Amino acid sequence: MTGFEKLNEEKVFKDPVHRYIHVRDRLIWELIGTPEFQRLRRIRQLGTTFLTFHGAEHSRFGHSLGVYEIARRVIDIFKSRGDWDDSETMLSLCAALLHDVGHGPFSHSFEKVFGTNHEQFTQKIILGDTEIHRVLAQVSPDFPKKVADVIGKTYENRLVVSLISSQIDADRMDYLLRDAYFTGVSYGHFDMERIWRVMRPVGDQIVFKSSGMHAVEDYIMSRYQMYWQVYFHPVTRSAEVILTQILHRAKRLYNEGFSFKNVPLQMVSLFEGKMSLKDYLRLDESVIMYYFQVWQDEEDEILRDLCSRFMNRRLFKYMQLSKDQLYADEELSGAFREAGIDPEYYLEVDSSSDCPYDFYRPGEEEERRPIQLKMPDGSLHELSRESDVVGAITGKRRTDHKLYFPKDMVLSLPDDLPAKKRIIELLHI
Amino acid sequence: MTGFEKLNEEKVFKDPVHRYIHVRDRLIWELIGTPEFQRLRRIRQLGTTFLTFHGAEHSRFGHSLGVYEIARRVIDIFKSRGDWDDSETMLSLCAALLHDVGHGPFSHSFEKVFGTNHEQFTQKIILGDTEIHRVLAQVSPDFPKKVADVIGKTYENRLVVSLISSQIDADRMDYLLRDAYFTGVSYGHFDMERIWRVMRPVGDQIVFKSSGMHAVEDYIMSRYQMYWQVYFHPVTRSAEVILTQILHRAKRLYNEGFSFKNVPLQMVSLFEGKMSLKDYLRLDESVIMYYFQVWQDEEDEILRDLCSRFMNRRLFKYMQLSKDQLYADEELSGAFREAGIDPEYYLEVDSSSDCPYDFYRPGEEEERRPIQLKMPDGSLHELSRESDVVGAITGKRRTDHKLYFPKDMVLSLPDDLPAKKRIIELLHI
Amino acid sequence: MTGFEKLNEEKVFKDPVHRYIHVRDRLIWELIGTPEFQRLRRIRQLGTTFLTFHGAEHSRFGHSLGVYEIARRVIDIFKSRGDWDDSETMLSLCAALLHDVGHGPFSHSFEKVFGTNHEQFTQKIILGDTEIHRVLAQVSPDFPKKVADVIGKTYENRLVVSLISSQIDADRMDYLLRDAYFTGVSYGHFDMERIWRVMRPVGDQIVFKSSGMHAVEDYIMSRYQMYWQVYFHPVTRSAEVILTQILHRAKRLYNEGFSFKNVPLQMVSLFEGKMSLKDYLRLDESVIMYYFQVWQDEEDEILRDLCSRFMNRRLFKYMQLSKDQLYADEELSGAFREAGIDPEYYLEVDSSSDCPYDFYRPGEEEERRPIQLKMPDGSLHELSRESDVVGAITGKRRTDHKLYFPKDMVLSLPDDLPAKKRIIELLHI
Amino acid sequence: MTGFEKLNEEKVFKDPVHRYIHVRDRLIWELIGTPEFQRLRRIRQLGTTFLTFHGAEHSRFGHSLGVYEIARRVIDIFKSRGDWDDSETMLSLCAALLHDVGHGPFSHSFEKVFGTNHEQFTQKIILGDTEIHRVLAQVSPDFPKKVADVIGKTYENRLVVSLISSQIDADRMDYLLRDAYFTGVSYGHFDMERIWRVMRPVGDQIVFKSSGMHAVEDYIMSRYQMYWQVYFHPVTRSAEVILTQILHRAKRLYNEGFSFKNVPLQMVSLFEGKMSLKDYLRLDESVIMYYFQVWQDEEDEILRDLCSRFMNRRLFKYMQLSKDQLYADEELSGAFREAGIDPEYYLEVDSSSDCPYDFYRPGEEEERRPIQLKMPDGSLHELSRESDVVGAITGKRRTDHKLYFPKDMVLSLPDDLPAKKRIIELLHI
Repeated sequence: MTGFEKLNEEKVFKDPVHRYIHVRDRLIWELIGTPEFQRLRRIRQLGTTFLTFHGAEHSRFGHSLGVYEIARRVIDIFKSRGDWDDSETMLSLCAALLHDVGHGPFSHSFEKVFGTNHEQFTQKIILGDTEIHRVLAQVSPDFPKKVADVIGKTYENRLVVSLISSQIDADRMDYLLRDAYFTGVSYGHFDMERIWRVMRPVGDQIVFKSSGMHAVEDYIMSRYQMYWQVYFHPVTRSAEVILTQILHRAKRLYNEGFSFKNVPLQMVSLFEGKMSLKDYLRLDESVIMYYFQVWQDEEDEILRDLCSRFMNRRLFKYMQLSKDQLYADEELSGAFREAGIDPEYYLEVDSSSDCPYDFYRPGEEEERRPIQLKMPDGSLHELSRESDVVGAITGKRRTDHKLYFPKDMVLSLPDDLPAKKRIIELLHI
Repeated sequence: MTGFEKLNEEKVFKDPVHRYIHVRDRLIWELIGTPEFQRLRRIRQLGTTFLTFHGAEHSRFGHSLGVYEIARRVIDIFKSRGDWDDSETMLSLCAALLHDVGHGPFSHSFEKVFGTNHEQFTQKIILGDTEIHRVLAQVSPDFPKKVADVIGKTYENRLVVSLISSQIDADRMDYLLRDAYFTGVSYGHFDMERIWRVMRPVGDQIVFKSSGMHAVEDYIMSRYQMYWQVYFHPVTRSAEVILTQILHRAKRLYNEGFSFKNVPLQMVSLFEGKMSLKDYLRLDESVIMYYFQVWQDEEDEILRDLCSRFMNRRLFKYMQLSKDQLYADEELSGAFREAGIDPEYYLEVDSSSDCPYDFYRPGEEEERRPIQLKMPDGSLHELSRESDVVGAITGKRRTDHKLYFPKDMVLSLPDDLPAKKRIIELLHI
Repeated sequence: MTGFEKLNEEKVFKDPVHRYIHVRDRLIWELIGTPEFQRLRRIRQLGTTFLTFHGAEHSRFGHSLGVYEIARRVIDIFKSRGDWDDSETMLSLCAALLHDVGHGPFSHSFEKVFGTNHEQFTQKIILGDTEIHRVLAQVSPDFPKKVADVIGKTYENRLVVSLISSQIDADRMDYLLRDAYFTGVSYGHFDMERIWRVMRPVGDQIVFKSSGMHAVEDYIMSRYQMYWQVYFHPVTRSAEVILTQILHRAKRLYNEGFSFKNVPLQMVSLFEGKMSLKDYLRLDESVIMYYFQVWQDEEDEILRDLCSRFMNRRLFKYMQLSKDQLYADEELSGAFREAGIDPEYYLEVDSSSDCPYDFYRPGEEEERRPIQLKMPDGSLHELSRESDVVGAITGKRRTDHKLYFPKDMVLSLPDDLPAKKRIIELLHI
Repeated sequence: MTGFEKLNEEKVFKDPVHRYIHVRDRLIWELIGTPEFQRLRRIRQLGTTFLTFHGAEHSRFGHSLGVYEIARRVIDIFKSRGDWDDSETMLSLCAALLHDVGHGPFSHSFEKVFGTNHEQFTQKIILGDTEIHRVLAQVSPDFPKKVADVIGKTYENRLVVSLISSQIDADRMDYLLRDAYFTGVSYGHFDMERIWRVMRPVGDQIVFKSSGMHAVEDYIMSRYQMYWQVYFHPVTRSAEVILTQILHRAKRLYNEGFSFKNVPLQMVSLFEGKMSLKDYLRLDESVIMYYFQVWQDEEDEILRDLCSRFMNRRLFKYMQLSKDQLYADEELSGAFREAGIDPEYYLEVDSSSDCPYDFYRPGEEEERRPIQLKMPDGSLHELSRESDVVGAITGKRRTDHKLYFPKDMVLSLPDDLPAKKRIIELLHI
């Protein structure tokens, strides 16, 4: 077995979150150098969030390095206590580094409109005809498959899986700290080193010494705050709505045979629902932003307007919806149509929901394993039973619905248009 | 005179460097909302530096807000001491906000290859047919011209000019702190609030109370460290060299009638040396990155290779040059040619030089006004006379020359090629 | 009315929490210079906490300046919005600065043992024959009384009272941030500037714009974490238990006519229950520590041992008690007595309890006014109704009981002593 | 050989500077628990500096832990590179932890007045009849001597000595960062981790890879700024002057047979010049502050006044002296005497001088070894030859002289006293 050589000299990346990211293994160094990994520099970590928090311009590249670094340090602590099977180390580090490698530009909207799936692409990138595959296969022919299994959560050693994907994993620890750092918000901080120190591999899971419960509580609360203050920020959602409508419009225009001045060659296979791995790897945010830029000159008025809104940040406004009013009602849509504004593109309900912490419920679509505390007597207690604060939010799915619309467009309608008044009333403008 | 209304409610931007950026004036709010200003979101503050420091993905948008915020706070301090003519406030804030609005993508390389000039474009954006002009002209017909004059350093009130452009100005204070924050380096910090508190408008310049000399010293040293540790980092320079060569190659190919698969429509007027303001405003880093992406499929081998290097971060290595060896010598170029590697694109000398602090010397191309300390007796003393540390580096232009080349390409030459051995010797590989 | 002059030049204190503390008023400057205020430098902010978190050596001096600075900045924001009656400004600043001036050394333990009350001493210092009184009385004869009333929460303008003492006041904001800074814990941070920006004086109370609810939530959670992670830390409590026992022992010895080698002259009036203001102002932590130091040489074995424990940090260990076992039981006390360890000094139950957020309930001993959110329609909603997280912890008094004992003393008992085995079993050593 | 057991479970101290301080060795844990080490909690790291920077109330306890932690981490890095003789590890850690253990209260002034020497006491504490000695002697009978030798710089392995005492050692790295943290100043920060990574043991010294030169430069500049901004701050010097005068006065009074109301029992042996180790260990800042407190009631007017000044921070003002005027001249002293102010206690010249970086000059009283850079070719170059900035300040001893005096006392002299006018003129009041 090869691929486990150390570098002659440790390499470091200066990182604002972890100070330095340390690379000692040739394999890791080579993975970072592949085109598929370098491509993550061209995909923002937080999609459209930079339109709300201007600091959030950081890419998935730094995050991926950060997840690797956390995994590396946690494994070091486990090893120093004799708690870790060292033959799983390289596998864990590769999985940590590559866990997001299948993300495309603005993944959320793309997946919604085109039915792509970044997790499938992660698998394809690791197993397919790529540089990453070739680097991984140096270790052994089945090593790429193992890495893919860890990321896909099907690897038999659940401990390794837990390190990368669980309620408190290297992924979440990095993104909370990193996104807080770049947005500049005060939330998102927690005592990561303390959490590392109380992590204990027990059987096939990682549990937490009960003396560290407050640090874990603090992490859960940080996550909760980040969700509502940053990730679900309504201005970001508004940009996301517009982005999604652009993609819908372009897809429909293409399928209806519209004659683009600027044909989006890189998106044709998307529009046709048969995107290859090679095409996918060519997509990045520069490409998307390029088309949004040039589509401001297309004949189609809707496409033109939506692209100009996105590029110049003229976003939709929103109205809060109550729980029994989850759809724009027919009266409003009718009034929009009457006013010559297509409700299909200019009226959109967006819902955010978060379940900040939940224990395992077999059979649910997304199974989450509970956070277990290890008590002084060795027994395991589930976190929400021990923590009032976490107990209070456990299993509570909080959902929020908003109706997005172009307020400026409504206000610029002629005053003598009857529909204008109706719209203004219905939207409480 | 209109344009001076306050907003009903103050707007804020969350900013990692200044915590919050406060906007109280409708005029400022409208300027930020123009397409020309929003475009700064698509132009990185530090060009290719993100390939060295992965955190440096921040754009000129945040920096421009930051310069505005510093100017706003300094003026507030001056006002609270009765040291400021309030009729210049709005002008100063607009100039602070817009001082970089003419920057294009990777300005340095573009200006080198195409002879464009971001300062000229700043003037054109403020004075030409733009949204920014229309917003500014609300104040008065001559207000845009005043803003342009402040930025161009020709405005009669030198105090206003000093606030935006001098040895210690709002621009430099923001970028040192901001670039340090995003790269994550320890340099670049200094006690900005202390500097603000010791700033004193005296006649047509801003001087510094001598009790704050150490804070000013610390600022000068931060700048020095940032130059050598971040701005002139050799890996960044390598990326810059490749970028420049891509532009050179594309321009030549275009002018020689090369048939591009992907014609860079947005760059044609650049290639032809007749770029209009409208074209310029369409150029951003997404557009450039888009072409570099698609040019990886062009027929021309040099263009293809250089673009692939830039996209996938396969950079050139470098050899340090001594002072009397500022050009790649003929022998080396010859060997390159013999080996089939075009030295015009694959051998490049790059020089960095910094003059960290210098006082005014009339007649020099870029005149810098000295930093004056105000002594307890009211007299003004030039900083480098009072400070040993600053004195030590005053007027010392430190220059560094490196020869960049594609080490991987050289090493993959056939071993029996005589030129290979010569190249390896000459470059000390 | 005098006393409102501005200083010729603003004075600043460098402060790690607020960067700078700004003093512009001569009155404030003179108050800081009084012996009664300077004395706060000799009283630690967190009592015995420095024995757990070695960074927590900061004094009440810095905290008092911090509370003043927060009040100053909040009032500035209110004033800039036209929300504040400027004639109350100086009164508010003085009350903020002086709110803790009556604290003595290790207040909690002293009050428990000697029945003193730091709030009464604050009143006496402001109203009595002190420098502080003389400085305040420059404004007007009734000004000291007003300051005392604000601190005593009896001042008629409830808004001024709220600024200094309420669920979110200048006092709590400063101590959470300051104690977090000096201990070095990750908890205790929240977005204070955002909270300031959403504070709104409404009638006689300060409410919070609902858009800032998450910042307020975050503050409540920080407080909760600081209580359990820092303020109620069991090691700190152990030191507090020993300190209390020393005071008990010394008082009893004095009252029993014990002949001290080192008579604690400054404590005699305490022991006799007739402490004067003048005596009180002479007490500080140096004096107490001095006696603890020299009492290590007294004849009385218990006093000697307890003082040596405190000075050399040989603390008691603890056993968690269940809710129905709040007292050391008779069997254990008997065994201690049998072993020659006086349970009166060496067995102590300590209880911590926190009610992290609670709304007003008339008639309760310590009335707390609820935190009100101001909704977009102007109505006021109580925080715990709007916030799941706060709702979850509202009104829940969490209590924790521990039994402290000298484990080392028990373990060094002769093994053939029957009581030793019983003690070890009962205490689960 | 015993004493090298690991603790069952690692212990940690929360530390604001290094996040956590990790203790894995029973020996280290026991040293920290000794009375001699705990005593460092009662001795401030920066003496009277807390009267200038109120945050600087931190003790030598935290600093000593910090130096230990830095040594531990640096050794870990050396070990991971195979650069370190592990048999020296425990010795190095003990020396790091104990290097300051001989410090007494306000060492600088005490040494000046009483001729004590904290370095001698460090030796005595390690070698004498102390708990520390007993803990160290568990390892081997000659282990305490080795620890003392490392601290005394006479240990044969110069590498171990360099780690604790050199131009860039664990001691200085910790105090710069720690003092900057607690005072809150912006200076004092540098990239410690980068310095660690470029440290290379070469022969008997620690050198620095030249690629890290800028980090080393930054450290030197931080030191320079901390000296002038914090350590030599004139307000701190003023407090130091008063402290020294109190000690002088008390010593003289004692020797002249003055009848103290409060005899300073703990200082008698000091006054008599025959202080024992046992007495020394009883001295701490509480004891000193206690006496200063009670001496405010002594009969002697000078002692009373000076103590009251120190306790209540009524400090002396100063006048800058030129280089050829290093002593208060006779005329001024005469005028003071005429005015009834004793110049021996109320007129004092204080000089600060710093030599921020200097290379080795054999024969000088305090030999400093130069900082060597290791160039890519393996050769060693002395730092000031490579760095312009360091070159500029090398060997430049900057000295500053100030004359301190009680301005308030002078101003309150009767106006018709002829000496008053002369004093005011001579002191430029």
